[in-house]
Amino acid sequence: MEAPVVFINNSFVPASEAVLPVGDLALQRGYGIFDFFKTLNNKPVFLDDHLQRFFNSAAQMRLPLQQSPAELKAIIYELLQRNHIPDAGIRISCTGGVPADGYSVGTPNLVITQQPLPPLAADAFDKGLRLLSYNHQRQLPEIKTIDYLMAIWLQPLLAEKQVDDLLYYRHGLVTECPRANIFIVTADNTVVTPERNVLKGITRKHLLQLAGSLYKVEERDLKLDELRAAKEAFISSTTKYVLPVLELDGAPVGDGTPGEVTGKLNEVLRKHVKEHVGE
Amino acid sequence: MEAPVVFINNSFVPASEAVLPVGDLALQRGYGIFDFFKTLNNKPVFLDDHLQRFFNSAAQMRLPLQQSPAELKAIIYELLQRNHIPDAGIRISCTGGVPADGYSVGTPNLVITQQPLPPLAADAFDKGLRLLSYNHQRQLPEIKTIDYLMAIWLQPLLAEKQVDDLLYYRHGLVTECPRANIFIVTADNTVVTPERNVLKGITRKHLLQLAGSLYKVEERDLKLDELRAAKEAFISSTTKYVLPVLELDGAPVGDGTPGEVTGKLNEVLRKHVKEHVGE
Repeated sequence: MEAPVVFINNSFVPASEAVLPVGDLALQRGYGIFDFFKTLNNKPVFLDDHLQRFFNSAAQMRLPLQQSPAELKAIIYELLQRNHIPDAGIRISCTGGVPADGYSVGTPNLVITQQPLPPLAADAFDKGLRLLSYNHQRQLPEIKTIDYLMAIWLQPLLAEKQVDDLLYYRHGLVTECPRANIFIVTADNTVVTPERNVLKGITRKHLLQLAGSLYKVEERDLKLDELRAAKEAFISSTTKYVLPVLELDGAPVGDGTPGEVTGKLNEVLRKHVKEHVGE
Repeated sequence: MEAPVVFINNSFVPASEAVLPVGDLALQRGYGIFDFFKTLNNKPVFLDDHLQRFFNSAAQMRLPLQQSPAELKAIIYELLQRNHIPDAGIRISCTGGVPADGYSVGTPNLVITQQPLPPLAADAFDKGLRLLSYNHQRQLPEIKTIDYLMAIWLQPLLAEKQVDDLLYYRHGLVTECPRANIFIVTADNTVVTPERNVLKGITRKHLLQLAGSLYKVEERDLKLDELRAAKEAFISSTTKYVLPVLELDGAPVGDGTPGEVTGKLNEVLRKHVKEHVGE
């Protein structure tokens, strides 16, 4: 397969030409934003939601975008057509550009890349996740910046502890996994997810709507201790749908097997995504 | 003047060709390190110190460098010769490279850039600095990563508050400015600077040695309240030498004018730098 075409600023270029100047503020000072969504059979999933969040991130970070959401959408559809990768992950990035003084926002660079996204392993849900709690609060948590310094830096710790991912907490309150939102199910089947200091996932948003017609739902502070004692826990993300958290810091969560509410929510989410893309 | 030549990985390239792939982990996930030093009349200032810190940052971030410190030094001297910019700032960067999975360290990219560095304004010392305290702790503070997200994001706040720079603190303890170390002088002429959770500047290191033969010196936790009540306060950095802090959060520090100890330390530092470059 040919390398996918990339969109930079105003044009589509071959992947080999998809480069940015070393002076860009993202490379110099880690200053940039992005969003990430998937396509199923060439149909973008929740594209409007992702574009809305991307434009919001850009505004919060004072990164003026050249294109309107509608123009960006047209560019994305053209990228899909050019690349022909039916099941893909698409990343829209905007960097700080090359600053005059090396320290302030310049003219932002917009980059849109597409990569094949293999389906989740068939046994992913049953295997579930083992998480490691880690005392950390992301900077500017409600903006989707490129700051994943701690998450990348801690990769060897995950291997060492034989866990699948981190779960950030601060002052005893759970926030999120580096690339996923966290939920618990209480003894009385209330679905709870943190409200503050987290990146509000698009899957999280849809899942909360779906869960609301089936269960009691609460967005509020969530104590790490509550998670340890929860009947069920799970995460949500664009690529993972819903996956049960079966272990936290080496101890089982709930009875250590995927819970009933978790399974139901994964089922309704998958159905909702299928309907969204018209299948 | 021609644009300066840039060194990338194994070769010197024109500035226009100094680019990195959009898939680099620095652009994708803000994962990279750097160091920055200056030259005076083509002579690098404290180069060995900077190289040592750079290699330490690389090791801490698990970024394998292709070159030895001696090889890097030879490359830097060749860059100086090619560019002919006698008074310059040189930035050595190392990024996470393009990861196979988009999320772990690949083959790092090494970038060395040189830019003219105008001398500090003649009245910089007398004007001093107005700082704004800000509750923030940098991630991995003792490693010189590219994470300046908060510092760049807060630039408009500096303009709004009419101050020159931020002063980070957490739990009542002062740490550092985004690009400078902070010191106070107590009533009995003890020079105090924070020891923990800061990037240990090369100028800080030399200044502590110089100060040690003139005053009592303490590296320890420093309370924000101590700074507010200090006789003198100042910052140190590669580009700024020593500059007095005359105002914090709108209130004068000390008597609001450059202090005697601050002046003396700036003088001995400047003399030390001159001697170092053989002038």
